Amino acid sequence: MAQLAQASDRMAHPRAPRRGLVLIGFMGAGKSTVAGELAKALGVGFDAVNSNTFQDAAGQTLSYKFGSLSHSNKAVRDQAVAHNIECIEIGEKLGSKALTVWIADGSNFPGQSNLNRVFDWYLESLGAIYARLPPNWRVFLEHKLCEPAFYSTVISDWGTSLMAAEALGPKAACLVDLGHHAPNVNIEQIVARLIRAGRLAGFHFNDSKYGDDDLDAGSIDPFRLFRVFNELVDASARGAPGFEPAYMLDQSHNVTDPIESLMVSAIEVQRAYAQALLIDRPALEAAQEANDVMLAHRIFKTGFTTDVSPILAEARRRGGGAIDPIGVYRASKYRAHKAKERPAAAGSSSGIV
Amino acid sequence: MAQLAQASDRMAHPRAPRRGLVLIGFMGAGKSTVAGELAKALGVGFDAVNSNTFQDAAGQTLSYKFGSLSHSNKAVRDQAVAHNIECIEIGEKLGSKALTVWIADGSNFPGQSNLNRVFDWYLESLGAIYARLPPNWRVFLEHKLCEPAFYSTVISDWGTSLMAAEALGPKAACLVDLGHHAPNVNIEQIVARLIRAGRLAGFHFNDSKYGDDDLDAGSIDPFRLFRVFNELVDASARGAPGFEPAYMLDQSHNVTDPIESLMVSAIEVQRAYAQALLIDRPALEAAQEANDVMLAHRIFKTGFTTDVSPILAEARRRGGGAIDPIGVYRASKYRAHKAKERPAAAGSSSGIV
Amino acid sequence: MAQLAQASDRMAHPRAPRRGLVLIGFMGAGKSTVAGELAKALGVGFDAVNSNTFQDAAGQTLSYKFGSLSHSNKAVRDQAVAHNIECIEIGEKLGSKALTVWIADGSNFPGQSNLNRVFDWYLESLGAIYARLPPNWRVFLEHKLCEPAFYSTVISDWGTSLMAAEALGPKAACLVDLGHHAPNVNIEQIVARLIRAGRLAGFHFNDSKYGDDDLDAGSIDPFRLFRVFNELVDASARGAPGFEPAYMLDQSHNVTDPIESLMVSAIEVQRAYAQALLIDRPALEAAQEANDVMLAHRIFKTGFTTDVSPILAEARRRGGGAIDPIGVYRASKYRAHKAKERPAAAGSSSGIV
Amino acid sequence: MAQLAQASDRMAHPRAPRRGLVLIGFMGAGKSTVAGELAKALGVGFDAVNSNTFQDAAGQTLSYKFGSLSHSNKAVRDQAVAHNIECIEIGEKLGSKALTVWIADGSNFPGQSNLNRVFDWYLESLGAIYARLPPNWRVFLEHKLCEPAFYSTVISDWGTSLMAAEALGPKAACLVDLGHHAPNVNIEQIVARLIRAGRLAGFHFNDSKYGDDDLDAGSIDPFRLFRVFNELVDASARGAPGFEPAYMLDQSHNVTDPIESLMVSAIEVQRAYAQALLIDRPALEAAQEANDVMLAHRIFKTGFTTDVSPILAEARRRGGGAIDPIGVYRASKYRAHKAKERPAAAGSSSGIV
Repeated sequence: MAQLAQASDRMAHPRAPRRGLVLIGFMGAGKSTVAGELAKALGVGFDAVNSNTFQDAAGQTLSYKFGSLSHSNKAVRDQAVAHNIECIEIGEKLGSKALTVWIADGSNFPGQSNLNRVFDWYLESLGAIYARLPPNWRVFLEHKLCEPAFYSTVISDWGTSLMAAEALGPKAACLVDLGHHAPNVNIEQIVARLIRAGRLAGFHFNDSKYGDDDLDAGSIDPFRLFRVFNELVDASARGAPGFEPAYMLDQSHNVTDPIESLMVSAIEVQRAYAQALLIDRPALEAAQEANDVMLAHRIFKTGFTTDVSPILAEARRRGGGAIDPIGVYRASKYRAHKAKERPAAAGSSSGIV
Repeated sequence: MAQLAQASDRMAHPRAPRRGLVLIGFMGAGKSTVAGELAKALGVGFDAVNSNTFQDAAGQTLSYKFGSLSHSNKAVRDQAVAHNIECIEIGEKLGSKALTVWIADGSNFPGQSNLNRVFDWYLESLGAIYARLPPNWRVFLEHKLCEPAFYSTVISDWGTSLMAAEALGPKAACLVDLGHHAPNVNIEQIVARLIRAGRLAGFHFNDSKYGDDDLDAGSIDPFRLFRVFNELVDASARGAPGFEPAYMLDQSHNVTDPIESLMVSAIEVQRAYAQALLIDRPALEAAQEANDVMLAHRIFKTGFTTDVSPILAEARRRGGGAIDPIGVYRASKYRAHKAKERPAAAGSSSGIV
Repeated sequence: MAQLAQASDRMAHPRAPRRGLVLIGFMGAGKSTVAGELAKALGVGFDAVNSNTFQDAAGQTLSYKFGSLSHSNKAVRDQAVAHNIECIEIGEKLGSKALTVWIADGSNFPGQSNLNRVFDWYLESLGAIYARLPPNWRVFLEHKLCEPAFYSTVISDWGTSLMAAEALGPKAACLVDLGHHAPNVNIEQIVARLIRAGRLAGFHFNDSKYGDDDLDAGSIDPFRLFRVFNELVDASARGAPGFEPAYMLDQSHNVTDPIESLMVSAIEVQRAYAQALLIDRPALEAAQEANDVMLAHRIFKTGFTTDVSPILAEARRRGGGAIDPIGVYRASKYRAHKAKERPAAAGSSSGIV
Repeated sequence: MAQLAQASDRMAHPRAPRRGLVLIGFMGAGKSTVAGELAKALGVGFDAVNSNTFQDAAGQTLSYKFGSLSHSNKAVRDQAVAHNIECIEIGEKLGSKALTVWIADGSNFPGQSNLNRVFDWYLESLGAIYARLPPNWRVFLEHKLCEPAFYSTVISDWGTSLMAAEALGPKAACLVDLGHHAPNVNIEQIVARLIRAGRLAGFHFNDSKYGDDDLDAGSIDPFRLFRVFNELVDASARGAPGFEPAYMLDQSHNVTDPIESLMVSAIEVQRAYAQALLIDRPALEAAQEANDVMLAHRIFKTGFTTDVSPILAEARRRGGGAIDPIGVYRASKYRAHKAKERPAAAGSSSGIV
């Protein structure tokens, strides 16, 4: 009961509610500057900025077809480094404090590239980017097992990501996307290891059954999400040094209204967090030390089986939000209004939020 | 053709042929000392010794049921440390230079253990063992994704293994068992990363389709074995610092004569090595740099499609061995002779060789 | 609320509580006959009997090392058939109505066996067993992807199992062990398909993260167990023809008291069932038909997030059981008493219950 | 040696060499009719035609966003059925004899659809298509584990595909795409089972390491491709009833010249076929029957380790083709010539060939 109250308190003071805003204008028109000012005015913060060298931009001089930061041609690497530095400069105007780097570099054929040499080039490129990080900035390295490269990816797993971060310096950290791992892998233990190394950048939350499915957080394996949050609550409770993860949703919404998916995903992340807070940690630790496995498991799992929906709703209410966000959103007919205001645009409904 | 000749030369001078010898006697009878002397006399070397805290030995004071080097009870950890130190002492008498540590420690239930704390204990225990390593010795850390623990294992992957090795010091290195990884993982890239870190201890060779199947090397995915050897030949060619891997077979022979399986597995390992030597590396590098993907792949794969069976047979012949080892072995009726000489013994036909 | 009450009613009338009984005696002493009588007297039923041709019994004439029902040697197949018929005869005395057949037959090497011919032999053997099934009996075929055979297994997946069942006749059905599938596979859809084919024999419940881990039901992926029960409740609601699954726990208890594990596993299976009963099916169907994906998912998942622990406890109480079974069991010191009464026996704590 | 000669003979008489032709014109302009005539004149045959309800065509009345042949709305299903019938009509003009149906239908969220009901609708729709198959036509059902649907797909595995084929009738068969299976699955055994059921439609060849990677055939796991062809040669040798598979390449060429990839892939498929022909089947069968596992495996694998590159080149030469197709193609500067002739077009380089 005390734990429920404590969880309620923690959940009741979220950051200010975010509102969506889209600034449209040609390059150089001042979007970044205006965006930074607007963000300050609205009390909205920017987290990490993401560079994009996994697609060729219109009018780009050199192609990233065969790689970007790890390309065999130094001119391509230089172009990719310059793009990342430009992202940092935009981020500075927006008030961001971190750059997230995910590259699609890799190979589709055994023999296509030298697995060691491309890592050399990656580190050389990242080193140049790292050297340009402003004070108080961090760089987040994101690994991915496969896709779009299907034989090898340069930053394929957390081990490679950690090797790179340690080669770069203290400002580099490792970002965990829940869908970027090999089948069966114990992701919460990877999280624990990165926390221990002082290198956990944070998360791209989503859910998956087969691979990088980018489904809504908590929709496929809510117990896994809970176990990840257990590690975060545990690290926070013991005051793990350098523990300051960033939380992002990175999902693809093909069959739902993206706004509804984002609301529900946020609730599911909060659910996992509230449930992890419910675990009686002193009792858990005692059972673990005594190797009373069944007792330890039941203490652990009771957090998960507890229905925290009411407390999440109450926390939203106290924070000025809706008890039933989807209901309110649907009743508001927000989507229908917006559809009238905005021109239809082709394009994806996925994205990192 | 020049490459075939070069491969032939390299294969033609193997180490002295090994002969099997079994010393039987009670504990304390002097087996280790005699074995060391015999080995010297026969020109046979001992590689790494393996500690075993994954099974309870008869008469052991404390059980490893809930862990060994990472057990929550310091007395159990101390017992496991003492066993490892004893293994080092035996190894010294045998002329070994390395200790391999694989533990079965882990958990079967979420919540059973604190994923971070057990790693603390592991490192503390390994630190005590490391402190007792003789000069010129190394300790090999072996990771495994699962089994016998099925929710988490303490040393689950190469990233954790590398973290541990770097925490311990320069004498610690990471052993790669080909079957101890998550599905789909690119093992040759892991090998490349560990070589780069100067931490590749060596291999437990075997093959697998589903997990830690311990099938005969090269029997399921010979192209994977070739790709691993490509990394080894590449590292050797560029003189990678600290590159000195140990090669072991770690297989389980349930449906074959273990001696036949070992002979054939050794041939398959040699086949992969000879094929990797055939790759025209300057041409490969040129195609890679030019991003001529198809050419690079074909240069790479030509090594693999070449039938090196004749050259392997010739290398065996020049080394004083049999052109057709299985044929000679079967004709010799060695197994039938031995079966008469030795008492039948219950037990496993698996093992690390 | 109406649904909670309905669930409560369904959970409140379980079958008579089971008590464990072990009959010990030499072959032929009459164990089977006595057991059947005892079972009747105690109101306890026997479900399926399991044949065992995956291990060589002491004194067995021919070995199953290279297969049993699909062995290349007809004499071995005949021996395995005879064993299965003997199991049926024992089962008749016990009042059982089904035979479960799981074989370890398969291969470790490509080329070891002809993948088609071994299936011929399997079907021929099963046909002989099928011909001896008493009226009202069924035979349950259990598939498994791998282990102990690691290249191929004869009955590897539900597709093969269904092919065999349809070749045999209407008394043959397919048993689903939750841990016997390839990684990532959607097991609840397999359940739906087998129900549709009228061939779902039932379940071996357990949980797993990596493969055939045989962990406690609901301990790793409780949402998956819920999704399986959703299919069962759905099939029951629509009166699917031939729907009469048998429920068994098939787990391995290495780090817990097996009795505690069985109690907790039974609760977790009931939890999944109660939660599946909570789904508002007419509302779910309406949302599905309208392709209101988010609404359908939330209706579905609300069953799972609801904490049914209180209702399960109440159902146990009404059924004459304990509100807190583990607490009562521990307070009773049952295990300590029994340990005094019974001689220590080496052996496994796993088993099909 | 006799086997090599036999393999050479079989490889030396391929079908007439194919030449690429693209007919461009508005709908209704007569492309299909002309194409059929041209094909006859050139001695080129059309294999299966593929319907496409996995993308919305421009101007399409109803969207396939939530499914096509299994959509909850009958009007959408009818539209998808009509499209398939139109494909048959086009195919008749082209001289095709089969329709391949792959649908993207499935779900992204547990609860999104009723796993059983969507299969009802699929079968109802396929039944309507089946009823319109001309005499001597077949319909090929293609299954896929996941993607673009990431929680469930309606036709997810060979078991479901076979259930559907048997529900439809003798003209329905199951198409195997090598990349559409769960990790670790033994695909060659699936091929053996479908052959046995008389329902193997044929193949979409490609290779993969992680999932539906659509890499070039034989580039990742050439031994698997060989094992698949071993089943085909075995079935052909024993005259399996109804055995008449269609062979197609279904690959995505992102980093290579698609024409080079197709040439090399065709060679790799021929390589696997030639190697499978080399297996000494009577000797293999004898070793299998005797359970001489090592001998059986070595007979089997000798086919694979034999370098058939020379015989493949000779077969190409005798058939009027190039000994070194890539060399000739590159020397011909075909691509450069064509690039001048044809307008640049945005679009994918993947495709079913």
